[in-house]
Amino acid sequence: MTLPIAIPFRPIDSKKRLGTIMSLPEREGFARAMLSDVIETIIDAGCAPVLLTTHEVFEIDLRVRTIVLDIGLNEALDVFRKEQNGAFGIVMADLALCDKESIMRLTSTHAEFGIVPGTGGGTNAIYIRNGSAFRAQYYGSSFMKHLTWAEEQGYSIEVIDSFRLSIDIDEPDDLVEVLIHTKRNTAAYLNQLGFVLHTEEGRVGVKRV
Amino acid sequence: MTLPIAIPFRPIDSKKRLGTIMSLPEREGFARAMLSDVIETIIDAGCAPVLLTTHEVFEIDLRVRTIVLDIGLNEALDVFRKEQNGAFGIVMADLALCDKESIMRLTSTHAEFGIVPGTGGGTNAIYIRNGSAFRAQYYGSSFMKHLTWAEEQGYSIEVIDSFRLSIDIDEPDDLVEVLIHTKRNTAAYLNQLGFVLHTEEGRVGVKRV
Repeated sequence: MTLPIAIPFRPIDSKKRLGTIMSLPEREGFARAMLSDVIETIIDAGCAPVLLTTHEVFEIDLRVRTIVLDIGLNEALDVFRKEQNGAFGIVMADLALCDKESIMRLTSTHAEFGIVPGTGGGTNAIYIRNGSAFRAQYYGSSFMKHLTWAEEQGYSIEVIDSFRLSIDIDEPDDLVEVLIHTKRNTAAYLNQLGFVLHTEEGRVGVKRV
Repeated sequence: MTLPIAIPFRPIDSKKRLGTIMSLPEREGFARAMLSDVIETIIDAGCAPVLLTTHEVFEIDLRVRTIVLDIGLNEALDVFRKEQNGAFGIVMADLALCDKESIMRLTSTHAEFGIVPGTGGGTNAIYIRNGSAFRAQYYGSSFMKHLTWAEEQGYSIEVIDSFRLSIDIDEPDDLVEVLIHTKRNTAAYLNQLGFVLHTEEGRVGVKRV
């Protein structure tokens, strides 16, 4: 059976911490561009993306099942897990660096529970074999909470060591990673907005031209 | 033959960007703590660390060959590569998250050139089969420079996808990663200085108590 992968998404007022360098519609368009790359990559990796969104999203690949629930992230994942009979994955919508190989490293884990930390204590991706048992605990130090939970369940655990899945795109400095390491919708969108790499005093940043 | 791995190091006025939260001796001690973790990990991974340092470092594992050269990073690596007959690696001294598995993913690459990007366009680790040909181009967007160089040489290339090797510890926010993902000398040193994890408004940071 094809592994379902839930992609939680908030299409409205997305990516607030980019507000210093993007307008509101630009931020929302940027979030959609990242989402489209994540969806394509998950399909490439042979899995079935399930968009778990707070509001309807247009311009989405028709192959993607969409669940609209205007509730919190943990609550939406609780609805999702209750309808699952087997394993599933969860991948954040802002993992613009993800590629087929890194997604497959997650989904091909032999452990009962696979997890990818985000920088700053977050959880960027999860695989759980016994999906209906999952208890989502996002926000704050969710990586440690999820890990402790899986240990308490007695699951075998793999922490997947991936730069591409650990870097989520939240802040202006993160755009550097998109422009260096990807050439897909998200990078094209940034180029359209005029963002380019810029080296100053030996450090690489972005500037808008 | 055991693979030599050069670890460039600057023991004096290290880690300037931590100057807002650590004194000068604390920064230098912190850099040495990271170095000791990197050295131990490289030995665990079955390789031979070679410390390439601008000034003599005390308290270093006696098994470690040390080359003292008070010159720039690229220049020191140029001296090092000229004395090599075969493959070698380069691993930055501030990769406090590195573990045996991630180092072995680098050193066991089947490619002629392996590279691990750092965040912000840097190069955190390199493996090169034809070591004496290497041309170090650190600073600025060194990841792209090294990659382009290897392509021009016609080398087979692997970009190793590792969170543990891509995160270098430069800024106060990076200390979060050390405290979450490691339990070695570096984490112990931070604990000694009073740094602890601290969650505020759903985000994890560090504070000094």
